[in-house]
Amino acid sequence: MRVEVINIGSELLFNKVNTNINLISKILLKYGLKISKCVIIGDKKEDIKEAFLNSFEKADFIIITGGLGPTFDDLTRESLSEALNRKLIFDEKIWEEIKEKFKKRNIEPPEINKRQAWIIDGSKIIENKNGTAPGMLIEEKNKIILLLPGPPNELRPMLEESLKSVKDKLKEENLITKVFSIIGVPESEVETKLKDLIDKMGENFIILAHPNLIELVLTLPEKDKEKFLEVENIIKNTFGLNYLGVDIPSIPELIGKLLREKKLKLAIAESCSGGLACKLITDIPGSSEYFMGGFITYSNILKKKILKVPKTILRKYGAVSEEVAIYMAKNAKKYGKADISLSFTGIAGPTGGTPEKPVGLVWIGISYKNKTNAYKFIFSGDRQTIRERAVYKGFELIREVILKNEKRN
Amino acid sequence: MRVEVINIGSELLFNKVNTNINLISKILLKYGLKISKCVIIGDKKEDIKEAFLNSFEKADFIIITGGLGPTFDDLTRESLSEALNRKLIFDEKIWEEIKEKFKKRNIEPPEINKRQAWIIDGSKIIENKNGTAPGMLIEEKNKIILLLPGPPNELRPMLEESLKSVKDKLKEENLITKVFSIIGVPESEVETKLKDLIDKMGENFIILAHPNLIELVLTLPEKDKEKFLEVENIIKNTFGLNYLGVDIPSIPELIGKLLREKKLKLAIAESCSGGLACKLITDIPGSSEYFMGGFITYSNILKKKILKVPKTILRKYGAVSEEVAIYMAKNAKKYGKADISLSFTGIAGPTGGTPEKPVGLVWIGISYKNKTNAYKFIFSGDRQTIRERAVYKGFELIREVILKNEKRN
Repeated sequence: MRVEVINIGSELLFNKVNTNINLISKILLKYGLKISKCVIIGDKKEDIKEAFLNSFEKADFIIITGGLGPTFDDLTRESLSEALNRKLIFDEKIWEEIKEKFKKRNIEPPEINKRQAWIIDGSKIIENKNGTAPGMLIEEKNKIILLLPGPPNELRPMLEESLKSVKDKLKEENLITKVFSIIGVPESEVETKLKDLIDKMGENFIILAHPNLIELVLTLPEKDKEKFLEVENIIKNTFGLNYLGVDIPSIPELIGKLLREKKLKLAIAESCSGGLACKLITDIPGSSEYFMGGFITYSNILKKKILKVPKTILRKYGAVSEEVAIYMAKNAKKYGKADISLSFTGIAGPTGGTPEKPVGLVWIGISYKNKTNAYKFIFSGDRQTIRERAVYKGFELIREVILKNEKRN
Repeated sequence: MRVEVINIGSELLFNKVNTNINLISKILLKYGLKISKCVIIGDKKEDIKEAFLNSFEKADFIIITGGLGPTFDDLTRESLSEALNRKLIFDEKIWEEIKEKFKKRNIEPPEINKRQAWIIDGSKIIENKNGTAPGMLIEEKNKIILLLPGPPNELRPMLEESLKSVKDKLKEENLITKVFSIIGVPESEVETKLKDLIDKMGENFIILAHPNLIELVLTLPEKDKEKFLEVENIIKNTFGLNYLGVDIPSIPELIGKLLREKKLKLAIAESCSGGLACKLITDIPGSSEYFMGGFITYSNILKKKILKVPKTILRKYGAVSEEVAIYMAKNAKKYGKADISLSFTGIAGPTGGTPEKPVGLVWIGISYKNKTNAYKFIFSGDRQTIRERAVYKGFELIREVILKNEKRN
């Protein structure tokens, strides 16, 4: 089943687009569906009609997002009505519901929103619990056309709802997709070590490389589902502790789960990463259960005053050093009232590097039980990439330390 | 001039795509160019050819990114060669350069990378300083076709270089684009207050709404450039201190610039925002000049132990309260050895809300000179949105406090 996505009204506003494509892509994966093509266009009737007709020729499932707002430049309804040669019909019930939504917020329903009660003839309404624009599901020529509003918080539940309702039609191929994750192994090594498996699986196997994380996406017909276990065993045996599991959540979520399971409290000391590690850990709802807090000792004064790194150590070894990373980790654990801690000190660039301490050099410290160690890395990339790589490497290390310590006991 | 972008090889990997589209869109804006359509497809020859021929029909300038890697599934070169009916020619000099790049990294040049030395006949080579795949610039039927590699750190300088080299052709319309930014005013208010101006400027005026920031993008022919000043004056007079300026950098950069100018050192205390404010401030190279550090007192224990919020205050008012925000700001300034400080304490959700303290409630504290105040907000949206809105609101407040204080003196 070929799926195409058309994203409307995003001229210039491209930072909004990604959220949608990403979101749609993730939700579709649960149904074993991949997006073959995505078109992003502005609110121009001719462009919308052309993009739709183009997709309508090849795709079996077309998801159109955006352009369902109340203002004059929201043209998705009109364009699709013309392209499909179906009338727009005013739905009194929907208009009542829209008015109700405004009244609940103590706002007089604006006349302009009446536009959102016009529905393409013969379409099934998808309720919008987080906004005013309803979605529409249309079936024509054995193809599914789905119109949904652009804001991600409206789009997500509506897409999930719609997919459930057409599940039987989507599942005709009965495909299952599973994602196997491997941490801390370069893509080339994964490819080399799994060469036989990759060759055997062919097009069903996709390798996605993220900083410090490799995802192997395998799609198989349901009748072959026992193969997943076979594949997982090969990956597990090949990568041991570096294999994270199948269909895992994000790395910060995984770390959170591990800390919760082991009843460990975490504290983080950050210099070069400047708060990124704390931010990622606290992105996860409920992280207060295992995250005590962080010390962003960006300046040397705060390294001394807050994390009690001795002046002599800072002077002798410099802020970016094994010794300072160790002090930061040790005292973050102590003052953070934690069981385990992470520290980061490095040179994220673009300036500040020297031949001995180049841009990209990061020392990562970990303190757990009575041991504190620091590990040296030289990451490549620009400032953001270096910071990101360092933090994810830290997450990898903390997982390893916890799991290895457990094994020993 | 109609610009279309084709992004290749991004199947599934859609979180990478946005960086590129966003990047391209921003760089093009400097030349007054807007993207009319963007197509994202996988590494399939038929899809690439079709997307290209489709764009070639309508667009004057086609930017194709990705699929120039060395492996068998990188098919952009072959597809374009077929679509344009131009031969691929092996360029010995480029192969030598690629080999040189590997040797510098002490890596034996892989035979597979030879693929990257095949060039579409008649194209101008765009040098790639950050990678091995060269870019290609092709002119045909008065249209410009640009092939660039996908990784943003390679794409950015190569796109900038290419645009410079075809500048004269792009500028035939001599358009200038300027972006006016307004902080802390809702979109609807901007629209209402500038209605006359918006009507007058018509299609040349685009409103982009970000959380807490409105950007007004105005494109005019060079001959009308004195109108920019006129427009700026209207916006300035309408929004006063809320008007940030024309073609400003990012908000964290703007805050950094202000702190540097005023020779002020900043410290930040974060609870609900969990490190996001510190992360955004330290995203900016050179932020160590004005950023002392942060206290991520996520747990109440650390609020007490590190930021010395009295136990009685926490018990009486709760962690999410005006009093705690004030203590956090005051002591972040004191212990952070700073001149000015920001604090955040709130309920980011999705759980943890009560009727009195709902999800979205955030207290933001600011301490500057001998004054410390806290401000109450209720932000809507999911966890990420609430955190983001709170932090940007904090940045807005700190700017306001500094500028108002200056005025008084």
